[in-house]
Parts: sequence; C-alpha cells; structure tokens
Amino acid sequence: MNFKIDKKDLYQSLNVIVNACASSNTMPILKGLKLEANKEKGIHLMGTNLEIGIENWIPAEIKKEGEIVLPAVQLKNIVRELSDEKIEFTADLEKYRAEVNCENSDFFINGFNPEEYPELPDVSIPIELEMPAGKLKRIIDEVKFSISSDQSQPVLTGILMVIENEKTRMVATNKYRLAYTKVDNENNIEEKLDVIIPGITVKELSNLLPEEGTVKIKVNDNYISFNFNDIMVVSRLIEGDFPNYEQVIPDKRKSRIIVKKDYLQSAVKRASLIARNDSNIVNLKSMDNKLVIESESSDIGSAHEEVPIQLEGENHKISIDASYLLDVLNVLEGEIYLDLIGALNPFVIRKKEKENEDYIYLIMPIRPGNQENE
Amino acid sequence: MNFKIDKKDLYQSLNVIVNACASSNTMPILKGLKLEANKEKGIHLMGTNLEIGIENWIPAEIKKEGEIVLPAVQLKNIVRELSDEKIEFTADLEKYRAEVNCENSDFFINGFNPEEYPELPDVSIPIELEMPAGKLKRIIDEVKFSISSDQSQPVLTGILMVIENEKTRMVATNKYRLAYTKVDNENNIEEKLDVIIPGITVKELSNLLPEEGTVKIKVNDNYISFNFNDIMVVSRLIEGDFPNYEQVIPDKRKSRIIVKKDYLQSAVKRASLIARNDSNIVNLKSMDNKLVIESESSDIGSAHEEVPIQLEGENHKISIDASYLLDVLNVLEGEIYLDLIGALNPFVIRKKEKENEDYIYLIMPIRPGNQENE
Repeated sequence: MNFKIDKKDLYQSLNVIVNACASSNTMPILKGLKLEANKEKGIHLMGTNLEIGIENWIPAEIKKEGEIVLPAVQLKNIVRELSDEKIEFTADLEKYRAEVNCENSDFFINGFNPEEYPELPDVSIPIELEMPAGKLKRIIDEVKFSISSDQSQPVLTGILMVIENEKTRMVATNKYRLAYTKVDNENNIEEKLDVIIPGITVKELSNLLPEEGTVKIKVNDNYISFNFNDIMVVSRLIEGDFPNYEQVIPDKRKSRIIVKKDYLQSAVKRASLIARNDSNIVNLKSMDNKLVIESESSDIGSAHEEVPIQLEGENHKISIDASYLLDVLNVLEGEIYLDLIGALNPFVIRKKEKENEDYIYLIMPIRPGNQENE
Repeated sequence: MNFKIDKKDLYQSLNVIVNACASSNTMPILKGLKLEANKEKGIHLMGTNLEIGIENWIPAEIKKEGEIVLPAVQLKNIVRELSDEKIEFTADLEKYRAEVNCENSDFFINGFNPEEYPELPDVSIPIELEMPAGKLKRIIDEVKFSISSDQSQPVLTGILMVIENEKTRMVATNKYRLAYTKVDNENNIEEKLDVIIPGITVKELSNLLPEEGTVKIKVNDNYISFNFNDIMVVSRLIEGDFPNYEQVIPDKRKSRIIVKKDYLQSAVKRASLIARNDSNIVNLKSMDNKLVIESESSDIGSAHEEVPIQLEGENHKISIDASYLLDVLNVLEGEIYLDLIGALNPFVIRKKEKENEDYIYLIMPIRPGNQENE
C-alpha cells in the first residue's frame, strides 16, 4: 500500500471520521479507522463504534492498493502537525504497520488487521429519498436539545423523524419538554418513514451537514444512512414506540404573549444567574404590557426583570425551568408567541413568522407547591 | 450606599478581583469581595483568599458612601449580562443586602458584614522599588513554567526573585529542570531583595501586567505588593531557603548546537505525539549537520524527525522529557543554543541573541537505563 495525498484533504477527512470511532476502552481496534487505497476510487476512510459509522472518499496519487486499520486519534494528531502539503503513506500489510513520511518527519504507526474491523451495514433498501442539507440541519437543530439523556427510556434518547407525503416532522422530548418541527418536502414522498435516530447521530449530523447541497437518506428496518458531499453517515436506529406526542400538544390557549426573542432571552439569562444557584426555576407573570420574570435563591438573593410584550387574553403566572426556556430561545429569531392556558398547563412557544403549526415547543410548568420560594 | 457606575468599568474590575477570591468551599465570606464607595476616591474593590489579594479603584458617581461584601463570581456574572451602560448600585448596610439596578433589571444580592472580611496587609516598608511592567511580565513568563507543583517542597512552588544592584534575577525549578533569567535594572538598586513569590501569584501577575507603564514593588518580611495602573496585587511570600541553583548550572560544555527554534519546536511537538502515549521521552542525537529526534511507544509506533543544525564540538546523544523541552520553546524566538556535556549531564538551552548568561534553561536527562525502549 503506497500513496501520496494532500495533508489538508487527509486531515479534514480524519477530523470527520474520528467522531465515529470508539473513544472509550473497549476493543482497541474500534478506536481505529479503516483506510483503503483503491486506484479507481481514491482513498476510503471509515470509522465506526458499532452505533454510528462515517465514511469518506478523498483523492490521492495511488501507487499500490491495500487496506489497514490505524488508531484514529493518533493518526489525526500526527497529520495535523506535519509541516508539508504532501504526505507519503506506505503500509506493510502483513505486519499491519504504516509509515507516514513528510519532509523530514517519519512516523511508523502500529495498526490492526482490516479484516477484523466491522463493516458498515448496507442500507440500500427499502426506502430512499432526498432532502436539502441545510433544511435537515435546521430541523435537527430546532429539536435536538430536547432529547432525553435518561438511558432507561431509550426511545426518548433520540429524535423521532416522520417523513410522509409532503411533510417531514421531527420530535424530541424528555417528558418535561417537547420540541416539534415540520417542514415541506421538495417532492411528494410515497413511502412513509417513521424512525427514531439516536441523539449521538443527530448531533454528529448537525456538525457535519453543509448549508448547501442535498442529502440522500436511505432507511431499512435497523439502519439509516445520510449521504452528502463525499461523506456517508450510517447509524443504528432506536427500536421501540415513540410516545404519542400529538396528545400532549394543547389545541387551545387562553392567552398569547407576543415578545421579542432578544429581550426575553437576555432577561431570562440574567434571572437564571440567580435561579441556577437553587432549583433553576423562573417565575413568569404577564402584567398587561409587560412580562415580569423573577427568580430567587435563598443563598444569593433575587432577580426581577421586565420585558415589554403585547398580550392577547388574560394575565397569567407560570413557573418553569429557566434552562428549558433558554434552550429554545437559542434557536428562535425575531418575535415569538408564548401561549398559556394556566399555571398547571403546558407552556407553549411558537414562531410568529408563520401562524401555522410548523414549530411547537412545550414546557411542562413546575407546580407552585414544588417551589421553595412561593 | 448608593452610586452610579459604568458597566464596562465595573465588569473589568470584577474580572480582575475575582481571581483573588476563594473559589473552594471554605468560609463563604472569602468567596466574596469587598466593595467600598468613597466620595473622594471612587469605588474600591478588593478580594483576597488570604494567600493573594487584589484591589482596584474605579470612578463612579457616588451619592452615598458605605461598604459591603458580595459574592464575587455571582456579582461578576450578573454585571456581565446587564444590558445598559449605566448601573445603579444601592446597598442596605444593616441587612448586608445590595440592589443592582439597570434598565428593566433589578437584582437583590445577599452579602456579608464588611467588618468580618480580612484586610490586606500593609507592605509599605522596608523595601520599595520600580520596574517596567512589560519587563517584569517577560521574565515571569520565561521561568514560571518550571515551578514545581509538589506541595511537599513549598520553596519550589514559587519563583525566586533576587533584585540586587544593577540586576534582577528570577529562578524556578522542580529539581528535574530549571529556568533562570536575568535583566538589567533601570537604576542601581541599593537594597537587596531576595524572596520566593508563590506560583499562584506569578501566574496572576503574568495575566494582569500590562505591556506599558511601571510596576511599583514593595516588600517586607512576609508580603510583597505590585502596584500598576489602578491595580494592587498583594501576596504572601514563601518562607524557606531556595536551593543553590548556581551550582547546578554547568560552567562548561563539550558541544553546542545552533538550531532554529521553529524547526526544533515543530519536530519535538510531532515526536511527542508518540512519546506521550508512553513515558514522554524523546531521544536527541546530533549527526554533524542534523539533529535526529526519535520517540517510541510500544502501543502506537515510533517517530523519526530530522532538523538542520550547526554543530560546534562532538556529536552527542541525550534523552529528555519532551514536555520540558516544549515548555521552553514556547517562550524562545529565532535561533537558540543547545549545550551538551554528555548523556548524563544537564542539557542546557540558551538564547542565541545574547551570548551572555541572561537566560539559562536546564533539563536533567533521563538515564538510558530508565527507558523501556533503549
């Protein structure tokens, strides 16, 4: 195995692939990535921790074909520090040992037998569809912060993605809050897709997806793959039934508050500086043309913030976890709606830009009795 | 107590003072800082954890004088997030409770009795001298990385500073390496100053010292203070005798290597990517017009680097801790000298820019027998 490759190309690719390699002390070979030189196709890099896999093709001047598994993090770090633009890569395929040569630097890196490295699953059937990469990234970002970290309910540790006819929906919830988003598909899609994608995969996708271009999505019963640029991300799907989210979303409201996201965000951020020393609760109270935001910590003191609003309907009070509100304010812009029914009913945040139901974020309130300071 | 103050001025000052406040769970009042409003002098902020203290004066429109102790980190975070340029500050000096008001934000912060807060020691006698701030910062940075973290030998956890006649010297060592620097004083200084400044203080000074202006230094038996801009840093001194560093510095050499710092740094950085998986040892070997740098890790593999050099004297081999060499290369520029006597003698790095003894960095070699891979 022998090839010459651009340092930049190789480093960029390693930087992507390394995210799919195991980082903990499981089988040492899973901390590696598989590197294959193919005269027709170029260099193929692939990493997987058995949950998620990423592969990438890059061009190179290949003199001799072959494949080897090398420790991913170490290879990435070495390539990053090399001085020159061109790297010569040679591997002894019997000893599983690679030589990386660049100007006056020579590295010998111990590898593993590529035949012992797992293959990525083939996800070529039964469903195949396309979506603009920027749109997929946006809807992931709009819901991913609501994924649960509680491993005892695996279905909540992922995002539900439903693609059906003209619409794609994404939902994530940890039972105390829920984020829901819906976008139009470019084309009417005949197959119905209804899968739960692991949190680790959606976070990786959010980092890797470009703003431009198209993503090809393929799904079978157990796996999903995303293909964009020369990168393919393959992930295991989470088995099980996602909770019926539709029944949680209120179909009515008693009041609607219209508020500038920037004002609300700054005020809640400040109030949470006090709240986070205690239970992280902020109390919201509409008073006609202003929203009062208050927090209290027995140690530190208290905060009182006022934000100008427009109110439709009656005045309300509600207590919520400040971080749940800040998470959604990070992904919204301009004016937003806060919809209220009562202090014990879900608190709903929507985008004002579209009156329809495209984005819904719901926070379960904290009962007044559960607070120390009420 | 009541005053109006610029948000920016107050935040900058809090950001400095907070470094002197206790961060761990000792007495809660030590996590606070003392804030005093004085109509003639302005606002005085002071924090101390009893090891180090920092104070600062800032201007404000003071309506009512007074003093209070407030939690430092919380106050800093709140001021950072405030929206407006002008902050109104009011304190109830009987309840030790402050109100911070800014536009639509109102914070009530619980404080402490300022009479229970420690005073900074008075360091007005017996020695007082001046030094350019930029020069003090430079010599601290040239030696501070050699300070020991081993608390069982307290004198090595600080920098020895000796000011005598026309010279100021600084030395730090952890027994396995030593950094020594010497600069000319602006004026001949009559008093001899010979103190050990704690590592925590020199690191704080390095962050705070400006490039321009003058530092006033005052010392007594137990404390040292540094005065620059409107900031004063006061620190306890470390008691005890610093080891006799002069006897460790070799007065001869068998070979001198002249090498470009940048080349050596890049090569050692790369070799250390392998070395750090093992004992962090790199082997240096001069071969007439090149320096070969090698490292090996039984797991990962090996690195071989070559750097062009000029050699005066015979060829040598030596094994050292890669991080010790990288630390000094971070603070040197241009061409440097590597002076060698033998594989078991100290390895000495000097600046080429001045042939004199102004900067000496010494690394104790690792005996070949202590290496796995030799």
